[in-house]
Amino acid sequence: MLTLSSRGKLMPPSPIRKLVPYAEAAKKRGIKVFHLNIGQPDIETPEPILNAVRHADFKVLEYSHSAGNESYRRKLVQYYKKAGIEVDHTQIIITTGGSEAILFGFLSCLDAGDEVIIPEPFYANYNGFAVAAGINVVPVTSNIENGFALPPISAIEQHITPKTKAILICNPNNPTGYLYSREEMETLKQVVIKHNLYLFSDEAYREFCYGGEHMSAMQLEGLDEHVILMDTISKRYSACGGRIGALVTKNRQVLDAVMKFAQARLSPPSFAQILGEAAVDLPDNYFDATKAEYMKRRDVLVKRLNAMPGVLCPNPGGAFYAMARLPIDDADVFCQWLLESFSHNGQTVMLAPASGFYGTPGLGKNEVRLAYVLNVADLNSAMDCLQQALKEYPGKK
Amino acid sequence: MLTLSSRGKLMPPSPIRKLVPYAEAAKKRGIKVFHLNIGQPDIETPEPILNAVRHADFKVLEYSHSAGNESYRRKLVQYYKKAGIEVDHTQIIITTGGSEAILFGFLSCLDAGDEVIIPEPFYANYNGFAVAAGINVVPVTSNIENGFALPPISAIEQHITPKTKAILICNPNNPTGYLYSREEMETLKQVVIKHNLYLFSDEAYREFCYGGEHMSAMQLEGLDEHVILMDTISKRYSACGGRIGALVTKNRQVLDAVMKFAQARLSPPSFAQILGEAAVDLPDNYFDATKAEYMKRRDVLVKRLNAMPGVLCPNPGGAFYAMARLPIDDADVFCQWLLESFSHNGQTVMLAPASGFYGTPGLGKNEVRLAYVLNVADLNSAMDCLQQALKEYPGKK
Repeated sequence: MLTLSSRGKLMPPSPIRKLVPYAEAAKKRGIKVFHLNIGQPDIETPEPILNAVRHADFKVLEYSHSAGNESYRRKLVQYYKKAGIEVDHTQIIITTGGSEAILFGFLSCLDAGDEVIIPEPFYANYNGFAVAAGINVVPVTSNIENGFALPPISAIEQHITPKTKAILICNPNNPTGYLYSREEMETLKQVVIKHNLYLFSDEAYREFCYGGEHMSAMQLEGLDEHVILMDTISKRYSACGGRIGALVTKNRQVLDAVMKFAQARLSPPSFAQILGEAAVDLPDNYFDATKAEYMKRRDVLVKRLNAMPGVLCPNPGGAFYAMARLPIDDADVFCQWLLESFSHNGQTVMLAPASGFYGTPGLGKNEVRLAYVLNVADLNSAMDCLQQALKEYPGKK
Repeated sequence: MLTLSSRGKLMPPSPIRKLVPYAEAAKKRGIKVFHLNIGQPDIETPEPILNAVRHADFKVLEYSHSAGNESYRRKLVQYYKKAGIEVDHTQIIITTGGSEAILFGFLSCLDAGDEVIIPEPFYANYNGFAVAAGINVVPVTSNIENGFALPPISAIEQHITPKTKAILICNPNNPTGYLYSREEMETLKQVVIKHNLYLFSDEAYREFCYGGEHMSAMQLEGLDEHVILMDTISKRYSACGGRIGALVTKNRQVLDAVMKFAQARLSPPSFAQILGEAAVDLPDNYFDATKAEYMKRRDVLVKRLNAMPGVLCPNPGGAFYAMARLPIDDADVFCQWLLESFSHNGQTVMLAPASGFYGTPGLGKNEVRLAYVLNVADLNSAMDCLQQALKEYPGKK
């Protein structure tokens, strides 16, 4: 009998996708399922950037430069400049989605057995890349009561060991929607300098901030050697399928190491690089409409949730996710029940149980993540379902 | 001072790309450089498959299924059937290039410290994926004298240890162009069964066989649990920039593990999946013209090389590479000299020194790899340069 690798066994299945068979079964029974479970925006990909791909003129679909097309990297310098981030094109390596930027960052900065501290709840796939890289995720718990603010400096320092090599933040946050303040970023800077750590910053949702101002880790002064930005165009331009991201840093050593991993896989996808390059030329007000739409949805979602008895949903400052605490026994059971045993006017709602976003076993049992990626009408219908479900669910508390 | 990971330091730079700065300098001096150093075909990407992308009708560039679009996987079943390989669509996981198929195979089947046996010379990037996965490549030497045939069974068995988990072959081979015979494949089967190993088979160049018939590892009877096919459309359809490959196996356990790694990175690139799906509908004779063209080039190249005093170039049975032994002291020095200090009628040639393709230090010092990805006229000019260079080179032997 051939054996799998231990990491092949250890590798966590996607906590978001595990309910998919139940959703498919519900649909087969004729039930309409509102998907608030995944971060696939319904916003249309801008026509001009799709057209850039459609009209691209070449005869051979060649490998690009391993760091991505130079024309694209030079264009991105403009994009980052507008976002208040000063970099040059040699400090940008185009990756296959933000996913690859995370993996390359882990592989280049940490060895097997090293530790990365991540405030929990966190994006579940960090676990997957950690297993792939053989490193350990050390969660520091943030709480729904204060809207998932950065845990106090003492709580972070408690978790630092000789194996700790980095802190990873996602800002604004998936799954909590939390937007780190300038003060919190300065706190992180102190910790990072004091303990000589890398600061990995996942800023996939940079443009989607409601009210507060986004501060990039790249804007922290004196932290050039420490900060590794992990970026992606997926959510920014509703271009998830393109698989284009970037790793950005001013640390030359790290760039050189990442470049070797990039060379091994030859190049990032060519078509979507064309799309990404065109995206930089979208009008400056492009994000206004998208942002206004997400903000409207957020307001509806948060208001509806907090109006339900026993439900707590902090107002998220960014991204398009909200976490809610529900008056239930077990969110995994509840989310499955929603798909298997419940319907309201022939409809139901699919949510992501929060347990998969926590590294500490047992946390998040009565929390769910909701992605507000549906229009207001559908969102209201989904909330009608949830409201009714919380009345009918046998395991309510 | 922040430190890199050991693997970040260990990671080998691309041996093929390291001469690029010298080529760029030569071009700046006005010298025409014939690139026989990389496997970037000059064959045009078929217009109908580019059109499939141009005319794809969708509003949102969404994530695809983590295993790739089901429609594409079902279509690939037809492709494989024509190639004499019987699989169903659940046995195919679409990957980001063949590169990701190799990485996923390593991660799922081997743990850090485990060993994979690879006949050398081999595709240099296997080293990179091995470092990323923390596994060790154990080379078994094949020789230019017998055209790089599979080393004898005794030589392979000599290298098997308790840590050995897999044998990896590339067939037809990059860099040697060697096409394994049915007998050699049966030999591999015996070894694999006797020692309970995985057989990783990289068949990127399946269609490009001249004379001999290609036997896929997937066609070996009784080896369903052992064989992991690592595939790519890059060379097949001159679609290198698309970054679409596949991992194919009948081993359900391995599929489940690979699927978890695939879920972590969400999905393979969408645009090139459309292209790949359309490629299955190319006429059955599509490869005839391409193959005839490569065969013509091979014949020119091999004839020209063997006509040069002191040069040995075995006739490659497939792919679009040839290895040649040159009457020189050091191929790394020679290849750099070709770019830095030589020109013939304002032209020179860029080759890949073979040392980077060997795992055993010191081997391949007087060998080079030539990719016949240029038309016959250019190929002849490149051979004129090489012929003259071998007369002028100070380190000739």
